[in-house]
Amino acid sequence: MSVPPGYRPLTPETVPAWLDAHPALRARVPGAHLHVREVGDGNLNLVFIVRDDPDRPGIVLKQSLPWVRVFGEGWPLTLERARHEADAYAAYQGFAGRVNPDYHGFDAPSYVLAMEDLADLAVWRTALNDGGIHAGAAADLGRFVARIALHTSDLGLAPDEKKRRVAATTNPELCRITEDLVLTDPYVEHERNRHDPALDGAVAELRADGALRLAAAELKHRFVTAAEAHIHGDLHTGSVMVGGGRAVAIDPEFAFYGPVGFDLGNLWANAVFAAARGDRLGRSAAFRAHVAAIVSESWAAFTGELRALWPARHDPFYPDAFLDAWLARIHADAVGYMGTELIRRIVGFAHVSDIDSLEPPARESAAGACLRAGRRLVLGRAALGSPEAAWAVAAEESARG
Amino acid sequence: MSVPPGYRPLTPETVPAWLDAHPALRARVPGAHLHVREVGDGNLNLVFIVRDDPDRPGIVLKQSLPWVRVFGEGWPLTLERARHEADAYAAYQGFAGRVNPDYHGFDAPSYVLAMEDLADLAVWRTALNDGGIHAGAAADLGRFVARIALHTSDLGLAPDEKKRRVAATTNPELCRITEDLVLTDPYVEHERNRHDPALDGAVAELRADGALRLAAAELKHRFVTAAEAHIHGDLHTGSVMVGGGRAVAIDPEFAFYGPVGFDLGNLWANAVFAAARGDRLGRSAAFRAHVAAIVSESWAAFTGELRALWPARHDPFYPDAFLDAWLARIHADAVGYMGTELIRRIVGFAHVSDIDSLEPPARESAAGACLRAGRRLVLGRAALGSPEAAWAVAAEESARG
Repeated sequence: MSVPPGYRPLTPETVPAWLDAHPALRARVPGAHLHVREVGDGNLNLVFIVRDDPDRPGIVLKQSLPWVRVFGEGWPLTLERARHEADAYAAYQGFAGRVNPDYHGFDAPSYVLAMEDLADLAVWRTALNDGGIHAGAAADLGRFVARIALHTSDLGLAPDEKKRRVAATTNPELCRITEDLVLTDPYVEHERNRHDPALDGAVAELRADGALRLAAAELKHRFVTAAEAHIHGDLHTGSVMVGGGRAVAIDPEFAFYGPVGFDLGNLWANAVFAAARGDRLGRSAAFRAHVAAIVSESWAAFTGELRALWPARHDPFYPDAFLDAWLARIHADAVGYMGTELIRRIVGFAHVSDIDSLEPPARESAAGACLRAGRRLVLGRAALGSPEAAWAVAAEESARG
Repeated sequence: MSVPPGYRPLTPETVPAWLDAHPALRARVPGAHLHVREVGDGNLNLVFIVRDDPDRPGIVLKQSLPWVRVFGEGWPLTLERARHEADAYAAYQGFAGRVNPDYHGFDAPSYVLAMEDLADLAVWRTALNDGGIHAGAAADLGRFVARIALHTSDLGLAPDEKKRRVAATTNPELCRITEDLVLTDPYVEHERNRHDPALDGAVAELRADGALRLAAAELKHRFVTAAEAHIHGDLHTGSVMVGGGRAVAIDPEFAFYGPVGFDLGNLWANAVFAAARGDRLGRSAAFRAHVAAIVSESWAAFTGELRALWPARHDPFYPDAFLDAWLARIHADAVGYMGTELIRRIVGFAHVSDIDSLEPPARESAAGACLRAGRRLVLGRAALGSPEAAWAVAAEESARG
């Protein structure tokens, strides 16, 4: 990978001088002395929390690293991902309210984006893993996806502007990761895949299922051809921060023009992981009810918001009946991508801590249930016409053990 | 509209000097004296036939004009359309064989593309209007669309290259014409619309049909979101030249990444116009059989070619069963766009000479039959599962008078 001239990874020591050279950002943390802490995982991005008062939120600087991320055979990752994340924040900030972090701008030469310091919030996956309840998060995210669906699509933008954005947000490197790791590898033998040996039989059966392979191919084709809206592209519970009565969608580096249902499906699958964990850890009834409602609450908020925004659509040629037909299509997509996310997190490259941090035999049981649910959801995506019906599949498989 | 500095419309007098400044093109007509004839309609493009021997094909230069094309309220048209046409010829020349004209390049500053001199061929619509039979043209075009479907799509290109092309071929100005004139205006009252007063009742009924409006909106949404392949975008019989046992697809200035079925549907609708005319002019049984076979012959050639190319697809993740599912989807789209093309040519802005040049009452009868067929095809697009079933609708309506 070529690194542009002038690109330098920042360090906690060089951040203050970099900020002095970017006065609009420096004005957000105006104190004389800056406290800089690097909190990224060091693998993909540098993330600096910059405060002038260590006890009050300041700003976050996020910088792409040119390191090659090694997935078995190796896979270079473009620095451009910071730009894609910045473009998504910029697109969303006009309508997403507080679900979008405050976005302060992108410095192209250094691949640094500046945004709200969310260090007082928790990663939703971590909160769910610990049995935490964040009422309203699912509805916040459902409304967020609805606003993306209307405001960035042909329903909300002038046709020329929508086409301009489709071209400008083309994100081949990050989409390729989804196309391969989510929508291809799990269904075939691939060295990047891994799964619990206890699931050997189920995995062999899954990879021999021709109907499932066809359905996965149809979902992959839709992912690469359905330029509906400027979707987040990676809206799992690890991309959501919660706290203070608020849910915030972060890390939209996978954003591109794709099918609206993809974001909902991603979220829904991760509710299934949280539930499979909660069932096995004997969480409280309140927690389990909270998790069990994520799918229906987010769908209700999504449809409610989209119906509320509908009268203001840019192109009134689309009749009210189109909204119903579109919602049905989005629902089927969401159930399908819910299934592909469930499957790939059990048998693909990247797993989830919800399941992996369980002890055997709970771990094998939870993984097996999620895998079975994923298969049924992919195959049944058109027939499972309500969020309750989709959730019932997951609940039934979890109860089967 | 801004005209770039250095842009000058060519004239027959200035073409020789322009060619002298473009030696690779001049070498194709190397004789000392050049015969230049302007044959464009003067409204949208300048088209120069350049020969050094007046009796032997030379080359054609096609130049966009910056004139505003007036559609009632006025509608500026980008000079960029010559670039879109050139890009399509360039994309197709690797696989389309002689259905693509020989393409000699594009000069960006002057918006001139250079291509094969096809002056010895006839426009297919004109040939059909005169009762001419060009066996093989339908099959040639079906194979052409199949090659576009495979070689320019996610089935034939590396994912990054396909996405690069989607962005590079974004064609907002020309797509807007289709979106408005084909997929919107005909279904509503609009000053650009016009129709034979004899059809007043049928047109009022059409515009009051909620199910039809929903179906048209779904086809419009698919047109603006389904980035399947680098389609021609305007493949009616006026965009096809025939002669010497060859069919050539010209004028792809509407080309963009859209649904594969759109090109087939366009072609099929124009077969219906030719048949409606032929029925009313008492053409020979041979001619009527020729026209009646256009839909089935082009579909058979399309599916045969796509199946033949399938084993060489770029992404083998797509199983054979996906091809069947995709063909069914393409067929439904084709029947739907066949219907929208039939409707818009009868009640929208741009009509066809096949019908308009008939004398009353044949004209009203043909127009009414095409309009009724269009409505049934749009509404029945998913149920009419074969080209024969789609054609039967058109034949039945034509026979009803």
